[in-house]
Amino acid sequence: MATTTITKISGQNYIGNKLSATGKTTYKTYNPELQKENSTLFYEASNDEINQALFIANQAFEDYKTFPGKKKSEFLNKIADEILNLGDTLVTTYCSETGLPPGRAIGERTRTIFQLRSFAELVSNGSWVEASIDTGVPDRKPMPKPDLRRMNIPLGPVVVFGASNFPLAYSTAGGDTAAALAAGCPVIVKSHPMHAGTGELVASAIIKAAKETGMPNGIFSNLNSKGIEVGQKLAAHSQVKAIGFTGSIQGGRALFDIASKRDIPIPVFAEMGSINPVVILPDALKTRGEELAKTYANSITLGTGQFCTNPGLILGIESDYFNNFINHLSKEIIKINPTCMLNPSIKKAFSNNQKKVVEEKNVSVKVTYNKEISNENYAPQTLAIVSGENFISNPNLQKEVFGPFSLLVKCADKQELEKAISCLEGQLTGTILGNILEINKYNYLLSLLYSKVGRIIFNGVPTGVEVCPSMVHGGPYPSSTDSRFSAVGTSSIKRWVRPFSFQNWPNELLPEELKNENSLGILRLVNNQLTNQPI
Amino acid sequence: MATTTITKISGQNYIGNKLSATGKTTYKTYNPELQKENSTLFYEASNDEINQALFIANQAFEDYKTFPGKKKSEFLNKIADEILNLGDTLVTTYCSETGLPPGRAIGERTRTIFQLRSFAELVSNGSWVEASIDTGVPDRKPMPKPDLRRMNIPLGPVVVFGASNFPLAYSTAGGDTAAALAAGCPVIVKSHPMHAGTGELVASAIIKAAKETGMPNGIFSNLNSKGIEVGQKLAAHSQVKAIGFTGSIQGGRALFDIASKRDIPIPVFAEMGSINPVVILPDALKTRGEELAKTYANSITLGTGQFCTNPGLILGIESDYFNNFINHLSKEIIKINPTCMLNPSIKKAFSNNQKKVVEEKNVSVKVTYNKEISNENYAPQTLAIVSGENFISNPNLQKEVFGPFSLLVKCADKQELEKAISCLEGQLTGTILGNILEINKYNYLLSLLYSKVGRIIFNGVPTGVEVCPSMVHGGPYPSSTDSRFSAVGTSSIKRWVRPFSFQNWPNELLPEELKNENSLGILRLVNNQLTNQPI
Repeated sequence: MATTTITKISGQNYIGNKLSATGKTTYKTYNPELQKENSTLFYEASNDEINQALFIANQAFEDYKTFPGKKKSEFLNKIADEILNLGDTLVTTYCSETGLPPGRAIGERTRTIFQLRSFAELVSNGSWVEASIDTGVPDRKPMPKPDLRRMNIPLGPVVVFGASNFPLAYSTAGGDTAAALAAGCPVIVKSHPMHAGTGELVASAIIKAAKETGMPNGIFSNLNSKGIEVGQKLAAHSQVKAIGFTGSIQGGRALFDIASKRDIPIPVFAEMGSINPVVILPDALKTRGEELAKTYANSITLGTGQFCTNPGLILGIESDYFNNFINHLSKEIIKINPTCMLNPSIKKAFSNNQKKVVEEKNVSVKVTYNKEISNENYAPQTLAIVSGENFISNPNLQKEVFGPFSLLVKCADKQELEKAISCLEGQLTGTILGNILEINKYNYLLSLLYSKVGRIIFNGVPTGVEVCPSMVHGGPYPSSTDSRFSAVGTSSIKRWVRPFSFQNWPNELLPEELKNENSLGILRLVNNQLTNQPI
Repeated sequence: MATTTITKISGQNYIGNKLSATGKTTYKTYNPELQKENSTLFYEASNDEINQALFIANQAFEDYKTFPGKKKSEFLNKIADEILNLGDTLVTTYCSETGLPPGRAIGERTRTIFQLRSFAELVSNGSWVEASIDTGVPDRKPMPKPDLRRMNIPLGPVVVFGASNFPLAYSTAGGDTAAALAAGCPVIVKSHPMHAGTGELVASAIIKAAKETGMPNGIFSNLNSKGIEVGQKLAAHSQVKAIGFTGSIQGGRALFDIASKRDIPIPVFAEMGSINPVVILPDALKTRGEELAKTYANSITLGTGQFCTNPGLILGIESDYFNNFINHLSKEIIKINPTCMLNPSIKKAFSNNQKKVVEEKNVSVKVTYNKEISNENYAPQTLAIVSGENFISNPNLQKEVFGPFSLLVKCADKQELEKAISCLEGQLTGTILGNILEINKYNYLLSLLYSKVGRIIFNGVPTGVEVCPSMVHGGPYPSSTDSRFSAVGTSSIKRWVRPFSFQNWPNELLPEELKNENSLGILRLVNNQLTNQPI
C-alpha cells in the first residue's frame, strides 16, 4: 500500500470541495462491538447546504457532461487510489461504526476499488454510449431519409443514499456513485447516519481526487443526516434528476412515492428487501443433504446475515431426507458463534421481525442460539419451520427478517411447492439445489421461479454478488423499484443516462462518439451493422 | 396487393380470439368530414371482459415467452400481411373515422407494415436480447468466480393505448404493440374511441395472423372504451406489467399516477405533449428567410397540425430579417386551405387552447385563416406573437395547442433567447435553423437546448419521425414520462424487457441465446468481448 495520509474526521458536510456545518442538528455514530458512542459530532446538512450542493452540482454538470471518457476514467481511478491512501484509518473507522471485522472492511474496500476501476475502464473506451448511426439517403422517395445519430447522455445530478450494510461498496464511493460519475452525472451522497465517519473519509478521498484531476467544484457533495428529512428533501428537490438507494422496502418506497408525485417525476432505483428463496429438490437432499446443510449454515450467518441476498427462505418437499437436512442445518448453525450487528437499532429490528414471524400461527422455532451472549448487539441465529400450506396462506411470512434467520418450508408435495413459489413476492435471487437428472421434472417450478427473480442460481448460495457485466442485481418489485436495471456490474451505468438523437447534425458539432471519423475507435451500430470503422 | 378480404365491423371486443360484447355501454364513431356519426355500435369492455382478457394473456405468456425469435417473427410478418389484406376496407374506415385523406391512411399503413417487419427482422436474429456471458473461474482465489449469463426477458402482459392521431402506426398494431409482441409480451389494446372501427379491423388482422401462426389464445385482445374508465381499470390491474400510451399530458400523467400508486408499481411509457421549439439564427434568416417560411408553413399545417412533433414554437432574435420571415410565414400559411381535424372534440380543444394562449397578456394574433369554412371541424391555421420577455415570464405560453398553430417569440438579443430556451419544459424535439458558420457562436444555447429535448434537428422540420435504430422519440418530462426510452425505432423494444441472470446454470437448461454452442449465431458479450462464436 502507498503512504498513508492521516485524515481527521471533522463531522462536517462536503458541499463540493468545502467543509460546511451550518445546521443545528448533530449526532454521533455508535460502536456496537464496544457498545458506546464514537466521539465525532456530525452536523446534519441544513436546507441551505442542500440547496448549495445542488446549485454547484448543476454548474459542475455543464462542464462534466462534456468531458471525454479518458478524463472521467482518470478521476475514477484516482478516487480508487485515494481510498487506498486512507489506509488503516479507513479500516478502523469502518469497524468502529459497524461492528464488522477488519477482514470484511478490507474485502469490501477491494470490491469498491474494483468497481471504480471497472467503470474507469468502461468509460475510457467509449463503446458503452451505445452509439448508433443511420446515414441519410437524400434522394429517397417519397421523402429524403435524414441522417440520424444516437448515443447515451447523462441525466444530470443524482442522489445516492448510503447503505447501512455496505459502508464502502454501496455507499459514498460505491457502485451507484461510480456508475453515475462514469455516466457523466455529478453525485450528491446522502450519507448513512450509522457510518458517517467512514462516509466522510471516503468523501475526502473523492474530493481530493476531484481536485487532483481537475474536476469542477460541485461534482461531488456529501451530506450528513440524522433522520429521514434530508433524504426526503433531496428526493423532492427540483434539481435532482435520479436517485439510487439500497435499503428497506419502507425507505425505498417512500422515496419512490415522493419522486413519483413531483411535478417532474424522476426515476428511483431502489434495491430493497428480498428473502431469496432456496428450493432443495429431493435427489439433492438424498445425496448431498449434509454438505448442503453445512454450506447453508454459513451462508445464513455470513456477515451476521446482513446481506440483501441472505437466504431467508428454504423450501423443500416433506420427506425423511428433508427432515435430516433440517436437523443437520440446525446442528451446524448452532455451532457458529454469534456475531455483532451493525447497530442496536438493526439488532432490535432483527429481534422484533423474527419474533413477529415465529409468533405467526403454525410457525415454530426449530433452533435458536441460546448460550449466553455478553454483547446485546450480537444476533442469535435462528431457524423457524412452517408447512407449505400455512406458508401459502400467510403473506406475513414473506416479510424480510434482516439478520441471521431463515424460514424452512415443508411442502406436502410438488404441487404445493409450486404453489408456494407462485405466491412469492419479487426477489433479487432464487436458488435451485438439485441434481442434474431430476431438474427436468421441475420445468413448471423453474418457470414460476424465473418470473419472481432477477438472478437464478444452480447449486450455490445467493450470497456473493459477482461484479461483472452479466450480473443482474435487482428484480421484480419489491426487491427493486425497477427490474429493468441492475444495481451491480457495469450495466448499472444505464440507470443514469438517456438516449439522445442528432438529426442532420453537422459532423464538426457532433460529440466524438458520433463523428464520421470515429477517432475513439469505438463500436457503433452503423446502418444496422456493428463496426469500429469510420464512415 | 393480395386478395382483399371483406371484413365486417362487429362493434365487439376481441377477448383473445373471441368476439365479445357483454357490457351495457355503447357508442359510435364520428365522421368529421361528413359531420355525422358512423353506423356501427361499439360495446365498451365490461369488467368481466377486462379480467378475462388479462387472465388469458397471462396463460398465453407462459407459452409465448418461450417461443423462438423465428416464430415471433413469423407472427409479426403475418400481421403485416393480414393488415394489407384488409385492403380498401381499412382505408375507407380509417378516413371515415378521422377526416384524414386516403393518402395519409395509405402512408400510415406503409409505416405500420414497415414497423412490424422491422421488429420481425430484429427478433429473427436474437442479438437484441443483449446476451452477456462471463465464464466461471472455479480456482479463483479467495473465492471461485461463478459462471454468469445475462439476457433480456419479457415483462409479461402489457397494455397499449391507441393514439387519436395515429390510428394505425401508434394504435392497435402500431409501434408499441409491434415492439411488445417482438419482446415476448402479450398485448391488450385499449382501443381509441374515435377510431374503434379501424381498431377492430386491425385487431381482426392480428387475431387471424395469431391463429395462422399457432399463437396461444390470449396473445392479443382489443378492448373498446367510450370514456376513461376502461383505461383506468387496466392501469390498476394487478396482471398488467407495463403500459404504452401516446396522447395528452393530462391522460399520460393520470395513468402514470395510477401505476405509481399500485402495491406493485409498473412502468408507464407515455409519449405526451410537446411544442417542439425551433430556433432561427440570424444568418439563416438573412440568407434563407423566405425559403424557411414556406417550409414551415407546410410543417405547421401538415396533417392539420396533429403531430406530436408539430412546430408549435418558433424563436428568433428581433431584427428586420426576423420580421420579414414572420411576414413571409404569415403570407404562406394563409394560402393553405384549412383541413379537417380528427374529431369535433379535438377541434373544440384546438379552438379553446388557442384562444387561451392568444388571450394571455401581451400575446397577439399575427394571422389566422379567416375566410369562411363550411365544415366546423376544419381548423383555421393561426400564428401568434409574443416578446421574449413576456414568453419567459409566462409558463402558460408553453401549453401545447394541438393543431395548426405556432407561437412566434421575438427575443431582444442572444441572452434573452438563451433565457427563453433555459425556461422551456421537456420536449420531444428541438430544431436549429442556422448557417454552419454562425452556429459556433451559439454553443451555450445548444447546450441548453440539448438538456430539454430527446432529438435535435439541424436545418429541417421536426415533423417526420424516421423509423430506424438511431431515432429517439421521447424526451424529458412532460414530453414523455421516461426519457430513458424511445417510442419509435427498434430500440423501443427495450421498454418491455428486463435483464435476467443465470448463475452456474446447466448448459442444457439455458435459453438458446446463452448456451455455449450459440446455435443462433448471435452477437454476445463473452468475457467482455463481442463475438458470435461458440464458447
